[in-house]
Order: sequence, then C-alpha cells, then structure tokens
Amino acid sequence: MSLTISIDAMGGDYGPEVVVPAAILALKAHPDIHMILVGDQDVLTDKLQQHNILDNEHFSIHHASQQVAMDESPAIALRTKKDSSMRVAINLVKDGTASACVSAGNTGALMATARFVLKTLPGIERPAIISELPTIKGHTYVLDLGANVDSSAEHMVQFAIMGSVLAELVDGIEKPTIGLLNIGSEEIKGNERVKEAARLIAETDLNYYGFVEGDGLYRGEVDVLVCDGFVGNVALKASEGVVHMIRHFLRQSFGRNIFTKLAGLIASPVLKQFRDELDPRAHNGANFIGLQGIVIKSHGGTDEIGFANAINIAVVEAEHDIPNKISKHLEVLLEGQA
Amino acid sequence: MSLTISIDAMGGDYGPEVVVPAAILALKAHPDIHMILVGDQDVLTDKLQQHNILDNEHFSIHHASQQVAMDESPAIALRTKKDSSMRVAINLVKDGTASACVSAGNTGALMATARFVLKTLPGIERPAIISELPTIKGHTYVLDLGANVDSSAEHMVQFAIMGSVLAELVDGIEKPTIGLLNIGSEEIKGNERVKEAARLIAETDLNYYGFVEGDGLYRGEVDVLVCDGFVGNVALKASEGVVHMIRHFLRQSFGRNIFTKLAGLIASPVLKQFRDELDPRAHNGANFIGLQGIVIKSHGGTDEIGFANAINIAVVEAEHDIPNKISKHLEVLLEGQA
Repeated sequence: MSLTISIDAMGGDYGPEVVVPAAILALKAHPDIHMILVGDQDVLTDKLQQHNILDNEHFSIHHASQQVAMDESPAIALRTKKDSSMRVAINLVKDGTASACVSAGNTGALMATARFVLKTLPGIERPAIISELPTIKGHTYVLDLGANVDSSAEHMVQFAIMGSVLAELVDGIEKPTIGLLNIGSEEIKGNERVKEAARLIAETDLNYYGFVEGDGLYRGEVDVLVCDGFVGNVALKASEGVVHMIRHFLRQSFGRNIFTKLAGLIASPVLKQFRDELDPRAHNGANFIGLQGIVIKSHGGTDEIGFANAINIAVVEAEHDIPNKISKHLEVLLEGQA
Repeated sequence: MSLTISIDAMGGDYGPEVVVPAAILALKAHPDIHMILVGDQDVLTDKLQQHNILDNEHFSIHHASQQVAMDESPAIALRTKKDSSMRVAINLVKDGTASACVSAGNTGALMATARFVLKTLPGIERPAIISELPTIKGHTYVLDLGANVDSSAEHMVQFAIMGSVLAELVDGIEKPTIGLLNIGSEEIKGNERVKEAARLIAETDLNYYGFVEGDGLYRGEVDVLVCDGFVGNVALKASEGVVHMIRHFLRQSFGRNIFTKLAGLIASPVLKQFRDELDPRAHNGANFIGLQGIVIKSHGGTDEIGFANAINIAVVEAEHDIPNKISKHLEVLLEGQA
C-alpha cells in the first residue's frame, strides 16, 4: 500500500459515526491507501464490524484511551490528555508510521498538540491554517485562517512561501501569484505590518502580485492570499455567514406560497447544481502548514462526504511531500539572503 | 422646509448624472427637505433644467470650482482643493447652513476633509465608518468599516458608544446589544486589544453581549458589532465578494441551456424578490460617525436609487440630531467614570 494516513476517529461532533463511513468513501477514491483509525478499541471494533470492514487490510485500529472535548482548553488537553485519539494520531506521523493525519477535533487543541509533537519547520516561526476557498475563477489558497493573531511582517513572508509551495505542487501552477489582503481606503492603505510584508515579499523570488481587497479574494485575483490570522479568520467566517444567509433567503423566497413552491420545484435541478458549486463539504479540510508533518483539520460538524474530502487532502499533500518541499524552498531563500 | 442637506453633486463615478435624479427621488420620500447641490454652476444648471427642477424651491445650486478625483491622495485634496464640491458641501454643514451632507466621492479624501473641517466630538479620538449590514433577523450596525487601522481598545469603546446611540435613536431599540468581533479559536481567543476592549465595554452602562464571530454578524446576534477598521473593512469587502460570486454562479446555472433558462424564467419573480432582499442599494450609505456634523458616504458606483438611499440616511440622522446625542451620552459616561 502506497500511503498510510492516521485518523482521529473520535474527534468532531459525531466521532466514528461520520469518520468510519468517510474512511470507506476515501478508500474508493484512493484504493491503495491504508488508514489507521485511532480511538476507543471497543467502539471502533463494533463500528468497523457494522460496516463489514473489520478484516479489511486497508483499515486498522490503534487504541487510544482518551478524547479531547470540543470545548476543552488546549493547554489542559496538552497536559492531561497524552493518550487522546488526537495526540496518538499525531504521534503516528511523528514516528513515521503515518504520512499524514486527519482530525475533526477541537481546533485549538489540535494546533497546540501538533505544534508540540511535530515542531515547526526550520525557518518557520509560526504554523498557519491554510485552506482553499472557492472563487469565480476556481479557487484561491488563503492563509492564515486563525492559527495566529497579530502576525508580523516576517510571519506573513513565511506564510507567502508556504502558500506558494502548496499551490505550485498541489495545483501545478508555475510561479503562483501571491497577494496580500489589505484595505483600499486611500487615506490609510493598510497598517504598517502589511506595508512591511509587501516590501519583504517583493524582495523574494516569489511571484508577488500586490495588495488585494476582500472582494478580490472571490474574484480570484491571485492564487495565494496572505493575511494575519485574526483578519483571515474573520473574513472566512463572515463569508460562511453570508452564504448561510443567502441560502436562508433563497429558501424563504421559494417557500412563500404555492406558486413560489412550484417555481422552486421547476428550478430545483438548477438550484441543486448551484448549491453543489458552493458546497462547503467540497472545500472541507484545512491544512496546518509549517509543521514537520502533515495535519489536516476537518470541520467538526461535517458529514462523511466532507470528512472524506479532508482525508483526500491529506493523501494529496502526503503524495507531494509538502513539508519537505517547503523546507527546501526556505533553504534556497535563506541562502539567497545570506 | 424642515431640513437642509448639502450634496456633493460632482462626486462618485457618475457625478450629476446620478446625483440629480437621486435628489428628485429623495424629495418624493421627504417632501419637506431642501437640497443644496454643490458643484459646477453651469453643469448643474443644465442638469436641473433638463429635469425641470431649476425653479423648484426644494433645490438650489452652490457653485464650487474644483473636484476631488476618485484616486486623488487625501493629503493633496486637503491642501490643494479648498473649493472642491466635496469640501464646500462639508463647509455648509460646518457653518450651519445644512444639517448633513452626502458625497459619493473619494472615501479617504472625504474622511480627511470631514475630520479637518468638522473636527471630532469631545471624547472621540477617531471618527469611524458605520453602516448597517443585512442579517437573517434584519440588520446590524457594524463599525469601524475602514476609517482606522490598529484601533486601540479605547477606540473600540468609543465605537461601541457611538453605535449604541445610533441604533437606539434610528431604530428605536432600547439598550441595543453590543458585540465585539473576534475569532473563535480556543487557543487564541482574540488579540489583546479585543480582550481589553471587552473588559472596558463591560464596565460601561452599554448592553454588552460578548464576542461575536464573523458568521454571527449575519445571524444577527447583536444590534451593534464593533471591530478594528482593518478587520471590519476586510469583512465587509469579503462579504460583498461572496454575494457577487453567488450571483455569478446563480446566473451561470440558470443560463446553461434552454431548459435551465426556462426554469429561470419561471422562477424569475421569486429570484427577483430574493435579489431585492440582498440589494446593496438598499444598504447604501455609510456614516462617518464621531464628527461634529453628519457626513454620509455613498458608494461611488451606485445608481440613483442607491444615492437616494444615502440622502435618506442623512435626513434620518439629521432629524435625530445624532452627533449631539452621542456627545451627551459621552458626557454622562465620562462623569460616571470621574
């Protein structure tokens, strides 16, 4: 088997209920991989039996006696949950048993544990959360989406390098364009950190495009968009909120009376296609980039299709050996500066 | 006539082409008001004649020999454009001739000029841009939307007071709920400025709700949402970008072939209602709050319906005497702290 992926089978809002069917779906897409489901031995044995995959060589169970709660403090999880399904799944990446791990668990605890166990890459001070967001043209990688606040100009340069390597390897884009998220008010034109980051990125060999405003993200102005983690997280969540609100109004409009319901029925195949294009499950799976190992965070409330997509991202990144490629790019860059 | 509004008739992407028809529309909604159209005497005379309102007592022309370009630097506009339509419109508020002014001109120049001419209210260090954004429940006032970057905790307290007064007076909400925009990652829970702002707002007599994430904005969790201007601007622009992208996909889905076009035709009255609910023109008009006078910024690219809505906001705020009410609230608050 080509690759082994470790999976925190107890994490997320639904644990094995979603994770096990998702793993079965992921195997259909990648028939060669092996998945280690980490969590309570008894619970997982039952669940695998239920799905008739207990003897399937593509799945194995690795017992972990603890779980990190979704609302648990990362510091407490780190100190007291040394045998949690999340931590053990990450340990399997650390010791080389697995090439990547996936978890739908508590974001803060996952980031803290991954950082503690795997450490950051040489030259990277802060790992970041990167994800691809849909745009009119396709998609754009955005980072940081909330691993850090008050990111410095130097951190943003590191984010730019990591995003560039990811877009180049995963999507095959030669010299991906890099934008910096900024505001357009003529008076201000951004804060000092963003201006300094622009100067620093322009000095690297990256394909620096310039400043991009919030709406430019969804116009697909650049391949990679770099920002502070606070700003990126707010932009992402606000965007999700808008999509949710629009669906609400659309449903309401078509549900108003018998005529609108009929119109909705006739339009429903078209509306379904429209929904599919914006399906958040297709974009599920954020990468904790900058670590000495691959950790993919699935949305906690996703279903099996969404979680399978997070496993898919783990497989693709492992195939491309992303962390080592970032390291090599950083070495070249640091030599160039020396 | 009850109120006089001064209007920068040359500002925005279309100048008098949009402003004059918009003023006529606004008069229908507020039949008692008087509007001073500021700009080139000859151009405006022609335009008013064309619309048969040259002798209408509700309109007058005030000549201004200059214009601020949409891409002009605010500092240069401030220094060299002392007779611009924008500046003269603001001067008319300063000298008491008008109760409020409206401009679709260059945002940075408008803010710089308004701040220079009108000055901030006592107790307010930084004016902010406030606007109401649509939510599932109705709307939420959000500030700052980009007048400032790196807003301090104290600035955010001032934003909270201004937003609370506006929501209370304009919408008649008793004790509006105030939220602070923050990120939800368990590990970080926001930056120090947001945490400090939360402590300070909780000590005031405002109805402090707590932290709100980006998606909570569109769920309508609070009446007033406070944030740093960089963050607010990115959230606003990203949201606009999502709406634009969704419209693009929706149009594309219905335009695909003869069957989808037919479905779109049948669904079109429903889709129109849906679009009306999200019509950006209905939400056009941002308030430069915190100044000793009312200045409303219209979107530069809006049409007459959008600009008329900005005039409407100016009228409502002038009727409620918002700047003085904010001043009084600040006095009470500062006494309480003394």
